[in-house]
This record gives sequence, structure tokens and C-alpha cells, in this order.
Amino acid sequence: MFSITVRDHIMIAHSFRGEVFGPAQKLHGATFVVDATFRRPELDADNIVVDIGLASAQLAEVLGELNYRNLDDEPSLTGINTSTEALARIIADRLAERVHAGSLGAGARGLAGITVTLHESHIAWASYERTL
Amino acid sequence: MFSITVRDHIMIAHSFRGEVFGPAQKLHGATFVVDATFRRPELDADNIVVDIGLASAQLAEVLGELNYRNLDDEPSLTGINTSTEALARIIADRLAERVHAGSLGAGARGLAGITVTLHESHIAWASYERTL
Amino acid sequence: MFSITVRDHIMIAHSFRGEVFGPAQKLHGATFVVDATFRRPELDADNIVVDIGLASAQLAEVLGELNYRNLDDEPSLTGINTSTEALARIIADRLAERVHAGSLGAGARGLAGITVTLHESHIAWASYERTL
Amino acid sequence: MFSITVRDHIMIAHSFRGEVFGPAQKLHGATFVVDATFRRPELDADNIVVDIGLASAQLAEVLGELNYRNLDDEPSLTGINTSTEALARIIADRLAERVHAGSLGAGARGLAGITVTLHESHIAWASYERTL
Amino acid sequence: MFSITVRDHIMIAHSFRGEVFGPAQKLHGATFVVDATFRRPELDADNIVVDIGLASAQLAEVLGELNYRNLDDEPSLTGINTSTEALARIIADRLAERVHAGSLGAGARGLAGITVTLHESHIAWASYERTL
Amino acid sequence: MFSITVRDHIMIAHSFRGEVFGPAQKLHGATFVVDATFRRPELDADNIVVDIGLASAQLAEVLGELNYRNLDDEPSLTGINTSTEALARIIADRLAERVHAGSLGAGARGLAGITVTLHESHIAWASYERTL
Repeated sequence: MFSITVRDHIMIAHSFRGEVFGPAQKLHGATFVVDATFRRPELDADNIVVDIGLASAQLAEVLGELNYRNLDDEPSLTGINTSTEALARIIADRLAERVHAGSLGAGARGLAGITVTLHESHIAWASYERTL
Repeated sequence: MFSITVRDHIMIAHSFRGEVFGPAQKLHGATFVVDATFRRPELDADNIVVDIGLASAQLAEVLGELNYRNLDDEPSLTGINTSTEALARIIADRLAERVHAGSLGAGARGLAGITVTLHESHIAWASYERTL
Repeated sequence: MFSITVRDHIMIAHSFRGEVFGPAQKLHGATFVVDATFRRPELDADNIVVDIGLASAQLAEVLGELNYRNLDDEPSLTGINTSTEALARIIADRLAERVHAGSLGAGARGLAGITVTLHESHIAWASYERTL
Repeated sequence: MFSITVRDHIMIAHSFRGEVFGPAQKLHGATFVVDATFRRPELDADNIVVDIGLASAQLAEVLGELNYRNLDDEPSLTGINTSTEALARIIADRLAERVHAGSLGAGARGLAGITVTLHESHIAWASYERTL
Repeated sequence: MFSITVRDHIMIAHSFRGEVFGPAQKLHGATFVVDATFRRPELDADNIVVDIGLASAQLAEVLGELNYRNLDDEPSLTGINTSTEALARIIADRLAERVHAGSLGAGARGLAGITVTLHESHIAWASYERTL
Repeated sequence: MFSITVRDHIMIAHSFRGEVFGPAQKLHGATFVVDATFRRPELDADNIVVDIGLASAQLAEVLGELNYRNLDDEPSLTGINTSTEALARIIADRLAERVHAGSLGAGARGLAGITVTLHESHIAWASYERTL
């Protein structure tokens, strides 16, 4: 199995609902360093997993919908606890939609899966892995 | 599949038995930067994998049983070559016991697996992955 | 010249005033990974720069006054653009007060300077360096 | 499942054929920081995955065949687009040959798989994972 | 003293002249992860060192003149051994010209110095520090 | 001012004397990732700070005198608290002796200073900076 990963980041505000979150129930924020991994069993005709330029650009577009926002006010996230792991899934699912829509190029239809990892600090990160 | 990872570290002395270890047969030491990863297929009612505060605290307790020690003198490790990969398993198994005992919260019973990675330097690390 | 550095982090929300900040004028947030460096020309009687346990604990206390907050609502920061570089100074100055108050131990009075670096992402960071 | 990983690097020149590569069609170069991971379900008699000294030495030999070269001129790579993901496979396959030839020691015959990851920058990397 | 640093990278081919360079006398290549640090004793009216957006954009433009090239063929580098440390100076000097030309904004005229660090691998890097 | 830095590491056991060290008074150990920085105001005739191959080799030799040891038993360290900052100075001083002895090449006599940084974990490091 082959994979490529591209890294970008977002800087957002948010808060959590639930006693388990302790002080993070207050409005605070995070830098999420985001790694998007694309997997496939065999390389395409150009000997690559996917056009890395398109992959980076599409990740940037997906992140642009979240960046420099207070996620508590985002209509698409209403009622959702935007935990690091939940955001990893949201970003992975949005990338998957773009793969299916052809935004990562025709060759990207050969992709088998996506993993998105969000680093919230130097000591904590979360991932979501899915098939395509 | 979702996962979260928390990082901590220990500073220990030890030695190895076996010619394969070369100069590491002498008493020496290591900082192990320890990454504990918890996996599950679906998030819990709070939209998380596990309470990250409890996960960090339980990892710290497990590491506290090893930290600032000469592992050659540890009764629980008698006769064991405490290689990086073997220690990864010991730490993963002790975390698994705590999951089963409820120390990571009731929601943690939905966890599917644990991976523990020990970084022994900037150029070498080892992992152990298990189910729960 | 000797130095030791300890690392910790905060997760905050804030916004900026001024056109130069572009989209960061909206409420957003950041994880700041914070490195506090303590310098002195000669080591103390224990052959150290400063008690690293006290240094870590005092840094954690200073950061605890900012962590999990919306900095726009902090009385001590009213009217201040809390840029990464400005926060580096605020943290360095608060650590300096603690050195002078004896909170880092009697030996810490031999410290010559403090530098605080805040990493806001994998591609941007800021520092403030001062004497004591 | 256990694994160990060792890290090394190469500094090479190359160019790509195909419009998808944009400016990288020109002769340019890369540092690839190379992580070679060796996996097995159970540890050997010494309580290790593989002799880490041999693993590092064999990885260095495999990389020595590529290091400080213009890959466009390498006979073994003629007609191949040496993308990061394609190089990951080449290195993994060459390591696998060495495992099978006994160069990583008799115990290495118990290895189940190899993963090779090449970091081409702080924001992009690629992997190839195979069984043995 | 305050500073901010922004990170970017280039991927280039080159070769060296001189026995001291050993195998690096052959055409090879490198990824240079480039950190550009801007220093000043006091913050500007917006409470920042320099507009980080402009700093990143100007660094990207300076690097764009080198990226995806064979430096042996660059007219502006004819006859120069493009060692990591020499490239650090070239990039720092080109950034300094842009500061003086006003490309980093009017406030950037208060900058006191620039440091550029080029990471050529996980185990080697070089810097050039200058005043403005 | 120019600099180059090379990285290597040691894995040692040791213990400390003094209440300030708390649990680290017991025999334990550390991996120290060691960065050695060499500075000079102008580059040499080859356009470099120092022969990076010689610098790496000499650092490896200096570290070889400490690696895989219990520092409590080292004759050259008798009666010394081998704190991270104290070891940084010992390594820097031993490198300086080698520069003066010509082991880093004739050109290295133009070096102005050395800084040695020892990373003891992902959250703590220490440095010693000296002139030559």
C-alpha cells in the first residue's frame, strides 16, 4: 500500500459541552496542524498516489472553510462537539467528497482511503481513517 | 476508525543481555518519549474517543512505575530484556488493564485497541499494537 | 553562557484589531507551544542553571492564568493586541517577577536572562528575550 | 504487532516527466529523511524485533546506492519517475531482498512486513508498506 | 528583543567544487527548510514585529527565485559554492533588500536584524545572522 | 555571523546528589540528543563554516567517550553532578580542544565559538555557549 501526506493548519476558537471537558467548556482555541494522508494499492500512470499540488490545494480549501473562525458559530457545525477527533472526521469526509467529485484529478478515483490527523499540541493529536 | 494519542516520557537506566546488543550490554540509559494511542470505530456520546484528561493521567501513572529507575532492579521486570519494543508492550498491556478496570472512564469500554510507541532517540523508535 | 529550556502549552481564543491582521481580526484561536529559557553565566552550587522542577511549575502557573480563556475578555490584557510576540513578552515578564520574588528558588537570583518563544504553528513562532 | 523504526537520509537530484509535476519537471533535488519500519507479531529470543544495528547498517547501504546522485542518470532507475512514493517502494523492496538474503540476521526471517516513509519536506511525505 | 520567524522550503539540485566536499562534489540535491527570523527591540503600533503575511509572502518570493532549480545553472550564483551556510546569507541579504525597499511594509523599517536558518536534514542545519 | 550545526546522540545512566534533584537522585538515565553549533564571522575559502564531515566525526568521537556508560563510574567525571547543562559544557570544551588541536581541519582555526545543546526530552533541553 502506498500513501502520501500533506500538512497544513488552522487556527480556530471553540468551546465544548459536557463535564468531561473540564476547563475546555469555556471558550478557548487551538491551532490544529492537519495531516491529510491519501492511500492506494498501486501507483497511477505518472507513478504517483495523487497530484500533490491538487491534494494540497484541496486540503487548503477544506481548511479555509474552518480557519480563523469561532466554530461555535459555524452553521455546518451546529450542535456538534468539535473535538479534535470529530474535526478529523469532518475534514476527512469533506476531502472524500472532493475526491468523488473529481477535484483531486481523474487519477484520484483510484484512491483507497484517507486518514486525517489533527495535532492540537506537542503532546496530543487525533486521527480519523476511512475508505473511499 | 478514530484515535487519540497522548505523549509523555520516562528517563531510565538499564542494560541488556545478549551479544546482539553490543555496547548496550553495559549499564546505560534512555529517555523514552512515549506516545499512547487509543482507537475505536465510533465516538462516544461526548463525541470523543476517550477522556483525554484521564488518558494522560493514567499514562502518567503507568510511566510513574518505571520513571527514574534502574530497570535492571525492578522486580516486575526480572529476567526481561527491556528493549524499546518490549517496554512498548509492557506499557500497552498495563494501560489495557486500566481500561478494563474502568480507570479511563465508563466510555473507554468502547475502545477497540491501543498502540504504544517509544522514541529512544531522534533516529529510532518502536511500537506495540494490540486489541482490547 | 548556560541555559535551560522547559516547554509547555496553552490553548486560547482571541481576535486582533488592525487591518494588518486580515482574517485574524475575527474571533479565532491558537495553541501556543511555549518554551521558557533561563540563562546564567555560571552554574550554581548544584551544577545547574535553575531547579528545573520549579521552573516547570512556575511556567505552568503563569500559563494557567491564560489557558482555556478568551484573551479578549481578560482584564489584565484589556486594550492589548495579543500577538504571539506580545504574549511572549507578557509571559517572560511574569516569569521574571517570579524569579525576583524567589519563586524559582534562592539560586535563581543568579539568573541573567529569560527568553520566551511561542510556537503558533509548524511554520511560525515568535520570541521575546530580556535580562533579569 | 511489534515494530521498530530507524531513520537516515539521502540528498539527491532528479526531474520528473509529466505535466502533473509542473515546475518539478526541471532538474531539482531533495533531501529525503527515510524511516524504515520492521514489523513482526512476536519478538525473537533476544526480546527484539530485529538487530537495530544491522537494520541501521543495511538501511545505510541501501541508501548509499542512491545518495549524492542525480537519479536521472542511475541505470537501475532508467525510465522511472522517481516520485517520493515510488522511491519509498524501491527502498522497501531492496530492504526486503536483504532480509531474505539473511543480511539482517537469522532472527529477521521472522519479520512480517516493512514500511518505508520518505519525508521530502516539513509539509509532505510518502510511504510504501509491504509484507515479507 | 522581539522576533518572529516564518518557515518555508525549497527543493534544489547543485554540486560543490573542492575536495572537502567529498561525494557532494557530484550533482545531487537538497530540500532546505528555511526559517527567516526578523528582530526588533520594540514592537510597532499594531503590537507586532512585522506583518507576518507580508513576511511569509516576501520569503516565498525570494525562495521562488531558487526553488525547483539546478543552482549550478543559476546566473546569479555563478562561481559560488552554494553551501547551506552560503545560501543562508544569500536569502538573508535578499530579504534585507526587500525590507529596505519597503516590501515588508512601512513598519518593517524598524527591524534591527534578520537571521536565516536552512535545515538540510534532520541532523544538519546552518544559519546566517545580520543587522539591517 | 555564520553557523552550522550537526546532531548526534548518547544514551547514558547517571544519578544526582542534592535534594533539588528529587527522584533523579536515584540511578536513572537519559538519551541526550546533542546539537553542536560552530560559529564564525566569515566563511573560509571553500565558502563553508567548517568541514561538516569532520565536525560530525569529531562530535561522534567526543560523544563516544560518554555513550553507553554509567556516568557515575566515569573517572573523568568523578564528583561532578552531570546535569544536562554541565554535560553541555563538557562536550563543548572537548570540542574546543579538538578545534585547537587541528582535528576539525586547518580552516577551523577561524571559528569564533561553539554552542552545544542537549535535549533530554521533548519538553526540556540545555545549552552551553563559549568562544574559541
